[in-house]
Amino acid sequence: MSKVLLASNNKKKLEELRRILTPIVPGIEVLGLADVAPYDEPPETEPTFEGNALLKARAAVAATGLPSIADDSGICVDALNGMPGVLSARWAGPAKDNHANNLLLLGQLEDVPDERRGAAFVAAVAFCRPDAEDELVRGEMRGSVIRELRGTGGFGYDVLFVADGYDRTTAELSIEEKDAISHRGKSLRAIAPIVAKALGAA
Amino acid sequence: MSKVLLASNNKKKLEELRRILTPIVPGIEVLGLADVAPYDEPPETEPTFEGNALLKARAAVAATGLPSIADDSGICVDALNGMPGVLSARWAGPAKDNHANNLLLLGQLEDVPDERRGAAFVAAVAFCRPDAEDELVRGEMRGSVIRELRGTGGFGYDVLFVADGYDRTTAELSIEEKDAISHRGKSLRAIAPIVAKALGAA
Repeated sequence: MSKVLLASNNKKKLEELRRILTPIVPGIEVLGLADVAPYDEPPETEPTFEGNALLKARAAVAATGLPSIADDSGICVDALNGMPGVLSARWAGPAKDNHANNLLLLGQLEDVPDERRGAAFVAAVAFCRPDAEDELVRGEMRGSVIRELRGTGGFGYDVLFVADGYDRTTAELSIEEKDAISHRGKSLRAIAPIVAKALGAA
Repeated sequence: MSKVLLASNNKKKLEELRRILTPIVPGIEVLGLADVAPYDEPPETEPTFEGNALLKARAAVAATGLPSIADDSGICVDALNGMPGVLSARWAGPAKDNHANNLLLLGQLEDVPDERRGAAFVAAVAFCRPDAEDELVRGEMRGSVIRELRGTGGFGYDVLFVADGYDRTTAELSIEEKDAISHRGKSLRAIAPIVAKALGAA
């Protein structure tokens, strides 16, 4: 059975990758960082999602020798010139949590009128192997930032984001609905055939 | 004696304008909002400094009939795609103060390396009169965001900003040093001859 490592400790991300990858790459075993010997993960210091995803996937390959997938994602708000962007997880500061990030974003946008509350969730996914070209894909989901927190699903900023064409937040969508339209769903579906081909050829 | 209204309640801004305008426009009397009948100030909803400065100066003219100056200014951080920008005063949320804004910015930039900590203070100043063209100028001061808060002068983000060519923060400069290089000094010196000409011709 082919193995691929997702360079993440996030269980929701691991489930999501298994859910999306398994139908496309039958028999694949998706490992998380908890399944391999610990190594020093690089800090996410790059100014782009793509740079951080590559940084993490390359470090995983160097440490484990396994074909490795890493992602970086975040919310890019038009009225904030595309920020929080790569700082999405640290928007309220390094010691703060998701809820603090969400409240800060709502506060920053309080005076921003409805017609300028557009935003996009963006994900970059890197797939790296020893002695092979790095692969990189990007997925986006356009929508807008509402004025309250709604829903219990998803993670991060899902509670304040409504995708274009929807009236529920992405935290109020079913897993299937969200996978179908999300930045992460799109980018994982784009990387899946690349992973399938690489592991099939290995 | 010619009068001009600064559409601001900020005493430091009023002193600054008097300091810079008086040598250039002798005999000018600079009023603040405390010196005129109260009116509803417009919320700063525009996405640019220029837009907000115009909004405030036009509202002051409409309410008082006086030649009116208004400014909007803020700090534009390269690693934040130019934000906090027009949201500088509300960066940590509408209920927070200067100190909270400064701590938030330090936290957001904690993982940003020294070579990517460039920033600019930017000010736009509008000068509006009844039945005359609106005038608009812009001033910038380039520098970088340090990793601590230093100094007791200035206001806003001065405590964490070091101008290019200096080693002290703008909160550690004398008033004269700061006026000479600051975004607000530059923009007020640029608007002063326009004000002088307009009031002389009135």
